Formats: sequence, C-alpha cells, structure tokens
Amino acid sequence: MATHRKIYFCGSIRAGRDDVDLYGRIVEMLKKYGTVLTPFVADPNVTHLGSNEGEAKTDPEIHDRDIRLLTECDAIVAEVTQPSLGVGYEIGRGVAMQKKILCLYRPQPNKRLSAMIRGAEKEGLFVTEDYEEENLPSILDNFFKKVDQRKRKDSLDWKSYEPM
Amino acid sequence: MATHRKIYFCGSIRAGRDDVDLYGRIVEMLKKYGTVLTPFVADPNVTHLGSNEGEAKTDPEIHDRDIRLLTECDAIVAEVTQPSLGVGYEIGRGVAMQKKILCLYRPQPNKRLSAMIRGAEKEGLFVTEDYEEENLPSILDNFFKKVDQRKRKDSLDWKSYEPM
Repeated sequence: MATHRKIYFCGSIRAGRDDVDLYGRIVEMLKKYGTVLTPFVADPNVTHLGSNEGEAKTDPEIHDRDIRLLTECDAIVAEVTQPSLGVGYEIGRGVAMQKKILCLYRPQPNKRLSAMIRGAEKEGLFVTEDYEEENLPSILDNFFKKVDQRKRKDSLDWKSYEPM
Repeated sequence: MATHRKIYFCGSIRAGRDDVDLYGRIVEMLKKYGTVLTPFVADPNVTHLGSNEGEAKTDPEIHDRDIRLLTECDAIVAEVTQPSLGVGYEIGRGVAMQKKILCLYRPQPNKRLSAMIRGAEKEGLFVTEDYEEENLPSILDNFFKKVDQRKRKDSLDWKSYEPM
C-alpha cells in the first residue's frame, strides 16, 4: 500500500557512527511506509572515515547524489541525536524544498537539541519528536498519516485551482 | 570602506562551546569586512545549555530571528570544525538562498569534514578552506575580494538586463 512513498533518511556519518545500529532498525521500520532512498546511512560498512557511500565516491559526487535524492523524496526522516553538519544541511535544504520532515531526538543528560531544529517546527510540515525506541512505531504511524492528509489537501487545492 | 556588508557568522552552540574563544577572534577579524549580524555566537556567556541568545528566548524565536538575519546577509562565514546541526542547517538554508558561503575547517586527526559541506563547493559561491588560525587574514581577504567581484558581476548583469 505504501511503497509509492520515497523516504530520505538522515543520520550522522562523519560526525560519528555510534548510532549506526539504531539507524538500521529505523530504516527497517521505514520500509513499511515506502522506499528508503538512503540505505547507505545505515550500512555498518560505511565508517566515519569512509568515502564510499553506495555508488558515490568523491565528496562532490556524494553531495550531488544526496541532493538529487532529497529533491525526489516525499518525506525526510532524520535521527538528530548525534550532532552532524550533513544532517543539519540536508534538513535545511529540505525545508527550502518544502519537504515534510520528521526529526527524531533521544533526550540526553546535559545536552539540548539545536534551536535551529527544535525551533523550525511547523504544523504538518516539520515535526520534532523526543522519543524512546519503543515509541517509534506510533510516532512513524502518526507522521505518515499526516503526510498523506497533507498530500490529499495539496491535491484537492490543486484540483480546485482555476486558471485566470 | 567595508561596513556596508552584512556577515552572518555560524558556529556551534548546543553541540559544544569548545571553540567559543576562536569564534570571538574570527568575529573580531570579520569586523574589518562588514557588520557581523550574529555576535551572540561568539559570546562566552551563551553556553551549550543556554536558551538566551541575544534577544531571542525560545527556540522558535531563535530560529526565526536567525533565518531573518540569514536572509538579510551578504555573506555567510561558518566555522565547521565542531559538527553542529544548527550550523549545517544554516548553511543548507543559505545555499538555497544563493548566499556566498565560506566554510572554515581545522583538519583533525582521525576525523573528516562532512561530505555535504566539502562536496558543496561551487566556484565563487561556496568555498571550504582547511586552515590554521595564522592563515585566516589572507583567507578572509581572498573570500571577500571574490564576494565583491561577484557582486559587481551580478550588478553588471542586472544593468544589462533588457525587459522583453
């Protein structure tokens, strides 16, 4: 039912791979909702020093491939617990493209999520959720339900569009 | 001569304040080239847990104020050694706004700069420089020379624009 959706998953690569196993479990869960365009983010063979992410070899190739996938996607899901320039950059570009974005944050002692992520909240378009792993299924269900509602709303608006 | 320029300086806040003194020295150097719109990034009283950055109090206030300043600025200078979601986000939004961007990176053992930053290089628009502090004056001189060349080119293009 849901494989039509294209999902861009973001996680830290060069800023640290401590959460790579968790990324793998999130990517598995996301497959229920669509095709994950960025499975290499969850690949344990991609290290924080590696330059081979999937087919892309050089940094410009990685950048341009990822921006192409970001442009294609219907929704962005980002694990934002590990601070990462790349994840922040992708979210920033995604906001400018008006993508639907879900940021997933595991609250940490003596740390706070970036104000630029937490403060970007926008009803139905940009959501940040503090989570524990056991709550992910219901958080993802809720998010994709809203993505679909928004899609229907957009397509209704489009149908009711009358050329001048 | 140069105070007409508005410069948006980015550095890590909640991802860690190890470099705050360096940010202060960079902001001092930037004053030669224009007005720095974001002096709070270099304020040692703003900690990684603080929510008062300048006048903005809540995360949405911080986000919206920073996006307004980003929209206003003529150039973005980002210190990107400390991985930070906020810095990545600002760079991503800045790229989408076609801002001139300089990223400053201090190479570290056993670490690599994000491919999304290094790979975003674009002649005259997006530059990443590996640096040591003593080289900053010439790196900044070069960058702002190119910003001005680009500005002249843009304004020439604009003058030669002929309405259809």
